[in-house]
Amino acid sequence: MEGGAESVATRIMVGVNESTIKGYPHASISSKGAFEWTLKKIVRSNTSSFKLLFLHVQVPDEDGFGDMDSIYASPDDFKSMNHRNKIRGLHLLEYFVHRCHEIGVPCEAWIKKGNPKEVILHEVKRVQPDFLVVGSRGLGPFQKVFVGTVSEFCVKHAECPVITIIRKPGEAPQDPVDD
Amino acid sequence: MEGGAESVATRIMVGVNESTIKGYPHASISSKGAFEWTLKKIVRSNTSSFKLLFLHVQVPDEDGFGDMDSIYASPDDFKSMNHRNKIRGLHLLEYFVHRCHEIGVPCEAWIKKGNPKEVILHEVKRVQPDFLVVGSRGLGPFQKVFVGTVSEFCVKHAECPVITIIRKPGEAPQDPVDD
Repeated sequence: MEGGAESVATRIMVGVNESTIKGYPHASISSKGAFEWTLKKIVRSNTSSFKLLFLHVQVPDEDGFGDMDSIYASPDDFKSMNHRNKIRGLHLLEYFVHRCHEIGVPCEAWIKKGNPKEVILHEVKRVQPDFLVVGSRGLGPFQKVFVGTVSEFCVKHAECPVITIIRKPGEAPQDPVDD
Repeated sequence: MEGGAESVATRIMVGVNESTIKGYPHASISSKGAFEWTLKKIVRSNTSSFKLLFLHVQVPDEDGFGDMDSIYASPDDFKSMNHRNKIRGLHLLEYFVHRCHEIGVPCEAWIKKGNPKEVILHEVKRVQPDFLVVGSRGLGPFQKVFVGTVSEFCVKHAECPVITIIRKPGEAPQDPVDD
């Protein structure tokens, strides 16, 4: 291809989240699937041609179930809760960054808080990746009514091309809403 | 990556069609855009890692406007019309195959007749590419009512991941339904 084309890597943003079954620091089945697909089918052995950008959106724990045993007695308690959440998110990202490092693919990873749909759209606008890879549980219409799918929203609204990688049927847990 | 992974190329199906403005053998703006995007962002200089599979679906010319000046007096006249259409389709595919040959990307190209949505789905099922790239005019909801979009249909129904490449705003013709 043209001379300069190779100098700038293709920047692929990958949305990743935690497992609904195992919780932090485990990545969801569909996040891992989307990541491994990208390595196998796009990056292959051309590691220097690509840069992976991992975005993890942390949903604020509205009902606090994740922290049932904690006691909040001062502003510092909340600060330490936020700190713990951040650490959990970092451990999740560590998995992906570690795997990239092993293979030799350049990468970056970061955490944002908020509604995943809105945050991903905002980050695509800000970071301007060449394209976005998102995993999907491949839910049927009935299941979707209750959980809403981030991937479909991104395909419709993101300001860059989006490729959705549906979880393999054999990898789906007993309850397909789990991931 | 693992030893065997590099031996089999990633097979990318690309849906291509003719220009609505210039007609055959010219490719539509969005077909060309999707193809060039694939070369620039995915294939890059890693030409031996990928194989491009060009599918051109010819829509039967129901009202025959494309052949207004022809006279049909015998079955042979229809045979020769079908022959002419096939030649036109081949000239369209020649553009893509020629470009791949120039760059050194392995490719295959073929023509099918029918409804583009149904045929693409069927060919994805038959050929099992790793993913499908389709161009899109990026029409608004009002325009879509009249033309229906093949890309959205593929994203929803194809049995492989699909990436939609929307035509650049600067490349859109005066009437955005044109391509």
